[in-house]
Amino acid sequence: MVGAMTEGRPAAKPFPPAPGVNPDTVEAFVAQQWPARPNRATCHEVSGRHAVVEMPVTSEAVRPGGYISGPTQFACADLALWYAVFGAIGLEAMALTSELSIRFLRPAVGNRLQARADLNSVGSRQIVGTVSIWVDDADKPVSVAQGTYMAPRID
Amino acid sequence: MVGAMTEGRPAAKPFPPAPGVNPDTVEAFVAQQWPARPNRATCHEVSGRHAVVEMPVTSEAVRPGGYISGPTQFACADLALWYAVFGAIGLEAMALTSELSIRFLRPAVGNRLQARADLNSVGSRQIVGTVSIWVDDADKPVSVAQGTYMAPRID
Amino acid sequence: MVGAMTEGRPAAKPFPPAPGVNPDTVEAFVAQQWPARPNRATCHEVSGRHAVVEMPVTSEAVRPGGYISGPTQFACADLALWYAVFGAIGLEAMALTSELSIRFLRPAVGNRLQARADLNSVGSRQIVGTVSIWVDDADKPVSVAQGTYMAPRID
Amino acid sequence: MVGAMTEGRPAAKPFPPAPGVNPDTVEAFVAQQWPARPNRATCHEVSGRHAVVEMPVTSEAVRPGGYISGPTQFACADLALWYAVFGAIGLEAMALTSELSIRFLRPAVGNRLQARADLNSVGSRQIVGTVSIWVDDADKPVSVAQGTYMAPRID
Repeated sequence: MVGAMTEGRPAAKPFPPAPGVNPDTVEAFVAQQWPARPNRATCHEVSGRHAVVEMPVTSEAVRPGGYISGPTQFACADLALWYAVFGAIGLEAMALTSELSIRFLRPAVGNRLQARADLNSVGSRQIVGTVSIWVDDADKPVSVAQGTYMAPRID
Repeated sequence: MVGAMTEGRPAAKPFPPAPGVNPDTVEAFVAQQWPARPNRATCHEVSGRHAVVEMPVTSEAVRPGGYISGPTQFACADLALWYAVFGAIGLEAMALTSELSIRFLRPAVGNRLQARADLNSVGSRQIVGTVSIWVDDADKPVSVAQGTYMAPRID
Repeated sequence: MVGAMTEGRPAAKPFPPAPGVNPDTVEAFVAQQWPARPNRATCHEVSGRHAVVEMPVTSEAVRPGGYISGPTQFACADLALWYAVFGAIGLEAMALTSELSIRFLRPAVGNRLQARADLNSVGSRQIVGTVSIWVDDADKPVSVAQGTYMAPRID
Repeated sequence: MVGAMTEGRPAAKPFPPAPGVNPDTVEAFVAQQWPARPNRATCHEVSGRHAVVEMPVTSEAVRPGGYISGPTQFACADLALWYAVFGAIGLEAMALTSELSIRFLRPAVGNRLQARADLNSVGSRQIVGTVSIWVDDADKPVSVAQGTYMAPRID
């Protein structure tokens, strides 16, 4: 996956993930917290500032025309951002999406989605990130998103 | 102009839906176009400028903490906007979401979601609308959204 | 619930503004806090959940084609939201925009802009609102926006 | 400036700009089309997929607290995206912002703003890009944005 990240895509920053966070522990944490989750995503990469995920696309996620539905792409973007937040602040179920905007760029055809979230800022109250979503070619994103996670309230 | 602004919100104009569009025909059209659709939504209202939908929430849409997941709320917002687009331009499968931004306002707990989309403009290329999503009380929205549908290309 | 949804938009609740807040005190407060502000806006209305503002448009705000520039419309939307936040939480200079998205609907021609912001939720951390911007006819908005103000940190 | 673009920021893609487009011609074109423009921006870089701009910040753009106002940051983001669109499709005054969302990350203090817009897709109808805005340190953005330009209608 990383090998496909070449020219024009952000290189992974040298930000180590929060203690105990790696692709395996992220997946295990999510599986434990959310046994009934709809999308059994794979975490390919996670650092203190980014994550790369892959999500299988089921037949019901395909809308008229044969395209992967917008909400499915949104789910993948949200997941990548959630995983990147884990990388930044640790395995914390209660970080919640505050807002997310998504733009659909081209028809999405395939049986999986991949997404990379890069965090733009990690504050004590808010974490903002930018996400790119694609099927097979990271240089041909099917959608891009940008949004905010709210850090768990500590009070 | 200001005089026309009452203390409340602007009253909606009586925009009739496009020919042949009513809640039953919208549901039948979507069912025919998208037999495998994930959310069997009910269309409560549709006019030439708005739609109200209701969507059951399944257990897998509930994330850690017992809250209806963000992507599920996004799906409901997108659906309401899609149905409102049907009201404006007729039953047309290929109107596609161009972009949509959503803000999460409060925890969403319940086994259904409702959404109302009001169209802000209906152009030949783009249709923009604002959406409010709630569980039981329309005055306590769980999220709000705003976005753009791209009219089918006619060329 | 659905029965409560009339054909029009939901009627606004009678939310009185925070103590001491009215159009005159809002204008005086802003003038005092921000003497060098670029847009001398008029506050037409303010309640605990909305505000209506009017902003003169200077010649430098008109971009090629004779249209009021996007950033000028953004400024007006941001201002209306700021004033509505005053209505909700009182005269507080440090409420800051967290994020704002704007959609441009039609060419904006004229020498003033008006905007109405309605608050969708008022929380202890965040305030979310939806804004409509127009020149002369509130039923023909030139843009719509939705965004978040961050409540002043109390800690 | 470019030298400051290092780890974790996208490298300029090898997309040559449209014929006749370079920083000088972009500035000359904008000056000719929009003599009364409010922000005399410098174009530092432009390719077929990105642009880097710098904008002086005037005293009236500074809001209470000493921070560069949100609308000023929005103006800079919009400008960077406009310049990148020039790079992609040529010097064309009528490409218009369709929608733009911006997130404010940290207080912006200084007397200039810089922004880099990277285009995520260049279609015949829409051009989508992601923007980062900073004062002095490109690795500490003060805001990020994402938005859509509508290609000039050819009909």
